[in-house]
Amino acid sequence: MTATALIAIDWGTTSVRAYRVDATGAVLDSRSAPLGVQNVQDGRFRDALSTLLADWRNDPAPRIACGMIGSRQGWIEAPYVACPATLPDLIAGLVAAPDGALTVVPGVRTRDTSGVPDVMRGEETQIVGAADEREERVLAALPGTHSKWAFVASGRIVDFMTFMTGELWSVLLKHSILGRLATNAAQTQGIGPAYARGVAHGLGPGSLAHDLFGARTLALTGELANDDVADWLSGLMIGREVRNARTWAHRHGYDGARVRLIGDDALVARYEVALSEAGIAVERAHPQAAAQGLWRIAVHAGIVGDARLNPTGSHR
Amino acid sequence: MTATALIAIDWGTTSVRAYRVDATGAVLDSRSAPLGVQNVQDGRFRDALSTLLADWRNDPAPRIACGMIGSRQGWIEAPYVACPATLPDLIAGLVAAPDGALTVVPGVRTRDTSGVPDVMRGEETQIVGAADEREERVLAALPGTHSKWAFVASGRIVDFMTFMTGELWSVLLKHSILGRLATNAAQTQGIGPAYARGVAHGLGPGSLAHDLFGARTLALTGELANDDVADWLSGLMIGREVRNARTWAHRHGYDGARVRLIGDDALVARYEVALSEAGIAVERAHPQAAAQGLWRIAVHAGIVGDARLNPTGSHR
Repeated sequence: MTATALIAIDWGTTSVRAYRVDATGAVLDSRSAPLGVQNVQDGRFRDALSTLLADWRNDPAPRIACGMIGSRQGWIEAPYVACPATLPDLIAGLVAAPDGALTVVPGVRTRDTSGVPDVMRGEETQIVGAADEREERVLAALPGTHSKWAFVASGRIVDFMTFMTGELWSVLLKHSILGRLATNAAQTQGIGPAYARGVAHGLGPGSLAHDLFGARTLALTGELANDDVADWLSGLMIGREVRNARTWAHRHGYDGARVRLIGDDALVARYEVALSEAGIAVERAHPQAAAQGLWRIAVHAGIVGDARLNPTGSHR
Repeated sequence: MTATALIAIDWGTTSVRAYRVDATGAVLDSRSAPLGVQNVQDGRFRDALSTLLADWRNDPAPRIACGMIGSRQGWIEAPYVACPATLPDLIAGLVAAPDGALTVVPGVRTRDTSGVPDVMRGEETQIVGAADEREERVLAALPGTHSKWAFVASGRIVDFMTFMTGELWSVLLKHSILGRLATNAAQTQGIGPAYARGVAHGLGPGSLAHDLFGARTLALTGELANDDVADWLSGLMIGREVRNARTWAHRHGYDGARVRLIGDDALVARYEVALSEAGIAVERAHPQAAAQGLWRIAVHAGIVGDARLNPTGSHR
């Protein structure tokens, strides 16, 4: 078995995934568990980690984690680093979990033009894994429950913006009147023509609180099949997100003609369709951006490569 | 006891209210029950009506109803009348419930600039009760689960627009991450400074799917008290609705400098605050606009005043 150089852990709200990474930064293997921060009771993170790692748990390689594990509800809080955030800034914000069980990457914060704060945890690491210092300007999109869009200049996270698109979609279908006429509410279903129709509508101007209601009225008048309601709504919301994110990018001097999509699930394919519908070129980032980002942070922090530079290197 | 000239019924999704109206159109008395359309099982509307009316049930006065009772899920469907909708158009669309137990007012439909249909049921009657033929141009707002804004020209409903503001607010607080940090989620609470702060934010430009997230981040950073999250979110969403409705009004040649608020609950007070924050003058409509509208429709349809003109005049 190739020696493990790093155990990289993407520890989110609902699930957690661990990667075994070799000395070249290549992922050898990965495993996941539904032991996200909100599913760990009474702060028993050490037990959760042990369950997740299973037979890796005695591997002496250093461990590093990003995501909600570093939030106030996580194992140990790693306070947000302010934008613009460089790789050295993130490294300066690393925090060791109790007993040095692992090193935790901080989240990043910014303020929008209205002065309202915005935060990310985990996505900063994916960005580090997906855009490096040699790239002058990257506009990145990270689809998800709370999608993030970010400007990355020479590896520095200049600014970002959260859209609650994924959660809104899910909550509206499950709990609002919009779900009553929807008979096929799986966002992982094939992307049908109703999705493209929703996207075209979302890319236009409008008011979201009004436009959402179309998912009801179109079905009510028979202009949208009940099986297509969820798909149309997904298109509407992702289309509107793309429109607003592009406006935001323009205002910040990014032309928004090219977007790097970070992620590896079915949702990314939906964004790909919406972006090309909007005439925006899409680049797909490395599918294991979190593992890549954790590796890069660990290398630059000296956690791997030279044990003498690693202040949190004692594991167990 | 003054003689009843009309029993006017506002029959919605969750509740129903009946008014006893005299020959001058004055409301003598009213009663309500939680017997909205969705709470009536197996089409037992006659029983529900009997329960609602109680000792009025043998009153020989004609009965007229508006709202979801005329929807496909109601007692009898009264198909939507297209905008622009005049009072005679609504009267032409009246439908008699089985056995002539009551006369049902149709809803109204339109299409927005994207061609997506929009519908109302019940609000058309409130509008008829709140703006008459002598008024050349009225911009009306009807706050609610699904708020409606309407242009009314000389008593004609020219066009309208639905905003899901109320339902969005409620669903997000109950079922999304935004509710987790909110400790006081009653929209009937006193209107605090956090509401005004939300309104100011909502009146500015922005992207709703992003701005909503502020309800989490402001609380997370301690810039908004947990008790104020629901109030701030209400302000944000109502402010954004006012902003978008005003844009819509401008596009249609209404200056939007004056709005007639129709409704009689705590939500209307919230809109009053948001509208004055936006520099828009507010007029409050008659608090029993539905009863007034039903009365006017009944008079113009000949249901009251002259029984010989009433084709649906046989009751029971």
